Amino acid sequence: MADPAETPSYKYFNLTYPIPYVAQIEIHRPEKLNAFIEPMWHELSTLFTTLSTSTTTRCIILTGSGPRAFTTGLDTTTASTSSSSPLSPTHFPPSTDPARRAASIRTHILSFQSCISSIASCAKPVVAAIHGFCYGLGIDIATCADLRFCSADASFSVKEVDIGIAADVGTLTRLGKVVGQASWVKDVCLSGRVFGGEEAGRVGFCGWVGGEGREGVLGEALRWAGVVVGKSPVAVQGTKEILDWSRDRSVEDGLRYTAVWNSAMIQTNDVPQAIQAGLKKRTPTFEKL
Amino acid sequence: MADPAETPSYKYFNLTYPIPYVAQIEIHRPEKLNAFIEPMWHELSTLFTTLSTSTTTRCIILTGSGPRAFTTGLDTTTASTSSSSPLSPTHFPPSTDPARRAASIRTHILSFQSCISSIASCAKPVVAAIHGFCYGLGIDIATCADLRFCSADASFSVKEVDIGIAADVGTLTRLGKVVGQASWVKDVCLSGRVFGGEEAGRVGFCGWVGGEGREGVLGEALRWAGVVVGKSPVAVQGTKEILDWSRDRSVEDGLRYTAVWNSAMIQTNDVPQAIQAGLKKRTPTFEKL
Amino acid sequence: MADPAETPSYKYFNLTYPIPYVAQIEIHRPEKLNAFIEPMWHELSTLFTTLSTSTTTRCIILTGSGPRAFTTGLDTTTASTSSSSPLSPTHFPPSTDPARRAASIRTHILSFQSCISSIASCAKPVVAAIHGFCYGLGIDIATCADLRFCSADASFSVKEVDIGIAADVGTLTRLGKVVGQASWVKDVCLSGRVFGGEEAGRVGFCGWVGGEGREGVLGEALRWAGVVVGKSPVAVQGTKEILDWSRDRSVEDGLRYTAVWNSAMIQTNDVPQAIQAGLKKRTPTFEKL
Amino acid sequence: MADPAETPSYKYFNLTYPIPYVAQIEIHRPEKLNAFIEPMWHELSTLFTTLSTSTTTRCIILTGSGPRAFTTGLDTTTASTSSSSPLSPTHFPPSTDPARRAASIRTHILSFQSCISSIASCAKPVVAAIHGFCYGLGIDIATCADLRFCSADASFSVKEVDIGIAADVGTLTRLGKVVGQASWVKDVCLSGRVFGGEEAGRVGFCGWVGGEGREGVLGEALRWAGVVVGKSPVAVQGTKEILDWSRDRSVEDGLRYTAVWNSAMIQTNDVPQAIQAGLKKRTPTFEKL
Amino acid sequence: MADPAETPSYKYFNLTYPIPYVAQIEIHRPEKLNAFIEPMWHELSTLFTTLSTSTTTRCIILTGSGPRAFTTGLDTTTASTSSSSPLSPTHFPPSTDPARRAASIRTHILSFQSCISSIASCAKPVVAAIHGFCYGLGIDIATCADLRFCSADASFSVKEVDIGIAADVGTLTRLGKVVGQASWVKDVCLSGRVFGGEEAGRVGFCGWVGGEGREGVLGEALRWAGVVVGKSPVAVQGTKEILDWSRDRSVEDGLRYTAVWNSAMIQTNDVPQAIQAGLKKRTPTFEKL
Amino acid sequence: MADPAETPSYKYFNLTYPIPYVAQIEIHRPEKLNAFIEPMWHELSTLFTTLSTSTTTRCIILTGSGPRAFTTGLDTTTASTSSSSPLSPTHFPPSTDPARRAASIRTHILSFQSCISSIASCAKPVVAAIHGFCYGLGIDIATCADLRFCSADASFSVKEVDIGIAADVGTLTRLGKVVGQASWVKDVCLSGRVFGGEEAGRVGFCGWVGGEGREGVLGEALRWAGVVVGKSPVAVQGTKEILDWSRDRSVEDGLRYTAVWNSAMIQTNDVPQAIQAGLKKRTPTFEKL
Repeated sequence: MADPAETPSYKYFNLTYPIPYVAQIEIHRPEKLNAFIEPMWHELSTLFTTLSTSTTTRCIILTGSGPRAFTTGLDTTTASTSSSSPLSPTHFPPSTDPARRAASIRTHILSFQSCISSIASCAKPVVAAIHGFCYGLGIDIATCADLRFCSADASFSVKEVDIGIAADVGTLTRLGKVVGQASWVKDVCLSGRVFGGEEAGRVGFCGWVGGEGREGVLGEALRWAGVVVGKSPVAVQGTKEILDWSRDRSVEDGLRYTAVWNSAMIQTNDVPQAIQAGLKKRTPTFEKL
Repeated sequence: MADPAETPSYKYFNLTYPIPYVAQIEIHRPEKLNAFIEPMWHELSTLFTTLSTSTTTRCIILTGSGPRAFTTGLDTTTASTSSSSPLSPTHFPPSTDPARRAASIRTHILSFQSCISSIASCAKPVVAAIHGFCYGLGIDIATCADLRFCSADASFSVKEVDIGIAADVGTLTRLGKVVGQASWVKDVCLSGRVFGGEEAGRVGFCGWVGGEGREGVLGEALRWAGVVVGKSPVAVQGTKEILDWSRDRSVEDGLRYTAVWNSAMIQTNDVPQAIQAGLKKRTPTFEKL
Repeated sequence: MADPAETPSYKYFNLTYPIPYVAQIEIHRPEKLNAFIEPMWHELSTLFTTLSTSTTTRCIILTGSGPRAFTTGLDTTTASTSSSSPLSPTHFPPSTDPARRAASIRTHILSFQSCISSIASCAKPVVAAIHGFCYGLGIDIATCADLRFCSADASFSVKEVDIGIAADVGTLTRLGKVVGQASWVKDVCLSGRVFGGEEAGRVGFCGWVGGEGREGVLGEALRWAGVVVGKSPVAVQGTKEILDWSRDRSVEDGLRYTAVWNSAMIQTNDVPQAIQAGLKKRTPTFEKL
Repeated sequence: MADPAETPSYKYFNLTYPIPYVAQIEIHRPEKLNAFIEPMWHELSTLFTTLSTSTTTRCIILTGSGPRAFTTGLDTTTASTSSSSPLSPTHFPPSTDPARRAASIRTHILSFQSCISSIASCAKPVVAAIHGFCYGLGIDIATCADLRFCSADASFSVKEVDIGIAADVGTLTRLGKVVGQASWVKDVCLSGRVFGGEEAGRVGFCGWVGGEGREGVLGEALRWAGVVVGKSPVAVQGTKEILDWSRDRSVEDGLRYTAVWNSAMIQTNDVPQAIQAGLKKRTPTFEKL
Repeated sequence: MADPAETPSYKYFNLTYPIPYVAQIEIHRPEKLNAFIEPMWHELSTLFTTLSTSTTTRCIILTGSGPRAFTTGLDTTTASTSSSSPLSPTHFPPSTDPARRAASIRTHILSFQSCISSIASCAKPVVAAIHGFCYGLGIDIATCADLRFCSADASFSVKEVDIGIAADVGTLTRLGKVVGQASWVKDVCLSGRVFGGEEAGRVGFCGWVGGEGREGVLGEALRWAGVVVGKSPVAVQGTKEILDWSRDRSVEDGLRYTAVWNSAMIQTNDVPQAIQAGLKKRTPTFEKL
Repeated sequence: MADPAETPSYKYFNLTYPIPYVAQIEIHRPEKLNAFIEPMWHELSTLFTTLSTSTTTRCIILTGSGPRAFTTGLDTTTASTSSSSPLSPTHFPPSTDPARRAASIRTHILSFQSCISSIASCAKPVVAAIHGFCYGLGIDIATCADLRFCSADASFSVKEVDIGIAADVGTLTRLGKVVGQASWVKDVCLSGRVFGGEEAGRVGFCGWVGGEGREGVLGEALRWAGVVVGKSPVAVQGTKEILDWSRDRSVEDGLRYTAVWNSAMIQTNDVPQAIQAGLKKRTPTFEKL
């Protein structure tokens, strides 16, 4: 497969295809437990935007490199000292107007959000395979994925409250939409307390919990992805699109959008192909999309 | 009870009243595991529209006939060969414009959705009592019900992805609204994997799991329905209406609608009747609605 | 602390500060199992509106007095006999127009809703610490809190259906937003059945279940509140605000609001303070807000 | 043209095709100035639902018969005396509960709204060609049309306030969406005052004002319809659908729906046909839709 | 009429009843051209909240005292020097955190908005009768009214931009909803330019323009109010409520709310009374509401 | 001014600064009446995205080059023959699945929409100064601007219907939001008829009409822009942001967003500066933003 998306041109991410059509992205800054600095989120955005239209990619797994962490989140030490970050005291000249600071900070947050949201707006299913630490920005990222799998040793924290800020890259908006237990959501967001893999599974934050560390959870993610890439990509991507649209809208609006979507999509050759394969108990193959 | 709704004039559904005010609807095409063909969804719609205003019906139980299935969903063999279905290759003359095909398919889907949604818009509580197979369209139907009970042997699958389409009769819009675990919802919708009764109960898709096959789950559904039909129908139908309205709207809009609704409904004689009965530990009886 | 909020001027509520910054409100009508009469909800509203801007209050715990109940809800006996209540047959002169009755009832409900909603719109986190009975209006109140903790012996019922009305002070609007299991929500709202603490925890209605009666659950609530009041109040109150805003809106709207909110809030001194404290493993202290 | 839609089987409406593809519907109860009784709105609904999918109909003109009125609205005399109408004192047995009355009235209004809304949900453009009186229900109907043309002698009134009710068949919901001058909308709805054709044109309620009585306005409507039926029906019906969808939603939602809609529709042969005809200055002809 | 609302206990507003049921409120700080200081908006709120439920008030006219102004808006001199205003440099101790300033300012704005919005949430129709200057806060107030009438000599300006702020008490949210010409709305809000009565009428901001100064416009407002108070108050207040609800929601939601509203309201005696009066050409009288 | 935004690196657009802070963008393909080909919309997007954060740009004027046209819209000849356009018959290999065509077309439309929407999401006010032809895509572009000014000789057409498609780059979504006369909006969108400058002004599509051709309208646009760039940029950009947010949301949501926005923005030094300048009748100068 000569897809440009595979070209290993990323500095902080390793992109591999362990199974055909399954892209595995590894957050790769292991010496810092995969903590994020600004260039990383821009690179992440480029990567997901590219894979979103790559015809050789049908499912994406996001993992951390090294045995200890998915990611510990924002690299706070860098953020609080590098003048490019609004969290740093030296970011603004002292004389700057609070309103002008706010305008600049807002632009910075919107850009940061937009990078992380590229995971959510990617057309292909994304599985976050989480082991070890998943703190702060790690939760923002995980809530953007479609599925979250974790190893039993995973540990999570909506950490932002501990550095004096309300999480602003997506956790507070998306967590309540991926876990329907408001009391639990408020608990972990307001207290910043650590919770483990078992709890993440029990409340439904993670859809699968098990395995031994990174390899264990990755194995299950690969197995799941292997199943999904065997399905019609027309059906899979349509399913993701309609689920996401419907989440934010009324049933009425969800149904009408679905009808328009499928009015074109049902015309695909994948339907007769899939039906024939089902009747003949064969494995169907589907054209690229 | 001489309600026209009871007249046994349905071909694919059996309507009985095992308890006063409790309508039991049996999907009745047992030789095909209750798989649906087009006349069935039109009949289903007529049935629920009629019961919605039948004064002798206060609660509805939906079940499948025969020991093996609630329903296996759309009868794919028929749908893929009968020229009346857009899934059939002979549905359109070969020369038809993709845009004209799309317009026709969209009309077909909207009509199909509208038939199935008649379950959701029925004014009376609907319990889906599920045993055996509940695949594809079976899930669309189950998500329209207010409550889902299942036997331990029930097995479920959002099957549509396996015939190359995104489910378009409601599952993708409603499932995320009835189960607040987005990771699980995406898993079962994207993979089409089978899940059993126990899992359905654990994630909250079914509110009660147990019993032995059809009779077991039906028994519990009847017990529940028996309780509900003893309540004021003004209170029961108002409760359903407000819960459904609020699900799709903000808290602000939910509260304002509730206040308008109850400004008339609280004037009912059922309130003093119910309060008196409570004080005197009598069973109240309520006028028809 | 000389905050006016502490002045013990409430008739039906005891306000104490068992820990600095943690306000404990006790519903205090123990001879009637804390059942509510109209003056109580007006007082409740005054109390929460005051604490919302009290700089010496950072977290609020709501509990019932006496060993037997959080609250049994509306005092139905009083409501059905006192002429000030629209549930009483003597509330309106017999000749009153149904439309004029409705206008008056609607105004009454909106005012009642507005009092109870003051809990939800309070800027500080609110924990409902529930033991014993929590019926009817008790559920309306509990769904307004951010977190719900309960003792194992707690018992709950969406009781309104048993007096012939659809719950109209918030339960039917908010319960589906705090518990993402629609089948369970419809079950308890339509049947009015009692459920216990264990079940409340399993479905996620309560975020913590345990302890022995009132003291047990209160202990855990105090422990939790003690953690939260040690955090930056800028971060804590921002987190609550954004979670609540996002619950009722699309992801897109949630993210944009968050960016505007934090454009000012991130300028706080609490951020460098918290980061420094973290690096130095000290406990930070934060200015009042 | 042998379309079943043309079969003159309507009692209160005349359906003719003065120009190919242009359906002209005449409200036909001239002896009562086209005032509506209940069978009329059911018939109206059947008519518009049929024409919505009739392939020989591309544009619809709605007019009143006789020289004096489009319609004077609801036939109040009949409504206030016939026991089938909730406006009649004999509609309910005197003992009926206000809540049960309300439930019945609500069902009646929803059904009435649904009939009138069939004009708005018709897939083809609808022009209301208005002359003479257009009162009460006439305004509800006119706001459902896509365009409103009127003769200079037309006179309008949101009359419902004069019989003691808030208009409930659509005027109060739709008028503010078709005329963007809130002060004027509130004026005419609250005062019920009569306004003429010139004013209707000035505020934008009617898009064209002129002509002499019925024939004058009908002539212009026919001229307009003649232009529109010469366009690609794929383009025309898509335009209506997207305009209506967008009116009730955010720009973001409007754009996304449009993209899905056109992803199928742009595949039509009408596009190359229209472009070629444009280049060659020929009149294109388009297949039925 | 002994309604407490009439008690002349307001310092900055004169309340009179020039016609039965028509409350005339005069902004009364003529020595400062009716410019607003903080106590005034709290008093305004009390006044409108009281009149909203006063049974002797059916329509409200809001006017300015003195010949020169409706109001020149916020008293900027006071606001920029009094330490109680966040526009004053002395409002915060210099050391205050920008985030804590923001929290305080936000609370201040929400409270200010809430006072002014009491005009919009008043259940009775409100006519702003505008002469002379109507600047800044004057526009915020005028957009809250249901109708705006002005004299030819009126002059308007969305003045806030000239003191360095985006208008935050309602103009920027409501102006686009009361005038459907976005280009004009952006022009006057971004440039702050003055526009006169004639232009206000042409774009539809004012529904009536004419008369000589204060007396001229007040005369027309009284004439209009006189008509409206003769109508059924059930119908009038329902009309306002439904128009306001529908403005912010989809047609679907507007229609459903209307049906629930009228299910109670149509039961009023005002309907037969109004119909009888109409048939007999008598003037009906309606009970208080 | 050395702002990179000024670097004349655009092929199809001329960017100049005729007045400090006022960017004038000229669509520059005069030999084709400024008709758009694909590289142009990508360049347009880059341009507006850059100016959105350029501190030397406070207002933007968009004009067409040459005396005859703002733009005639999409270059249909190129679009219908170049294989890069989905309107071209050679764009897809003949064997391509209708569903795969649809997926590709949808991606194309979303990208096209996103480029054009960059005008609407630019943080600075944009004035479209329109002369001569403004057809098809020209309308999509004009509805993205904040203000539309036109010369008397301008001529407009929602042309898409004439090439067989529903306009899909924004016109059908935005036109109804910028002109509040639904009958007129439907007329021009469904008929594709040409309308002139005078009509554009009368219905409010253009906020100013006059001048002689390009120079006339440009003169007025420059005059307007000159006024606006003298205002506080904090106030101007906040005003635009809040107006746009409020247009798509309820009054409630508009007010809350405004309060959060201004909680930071009111802290600007521009406020005392502007107030002082006003009192002293000086022209204030404001820092860059």
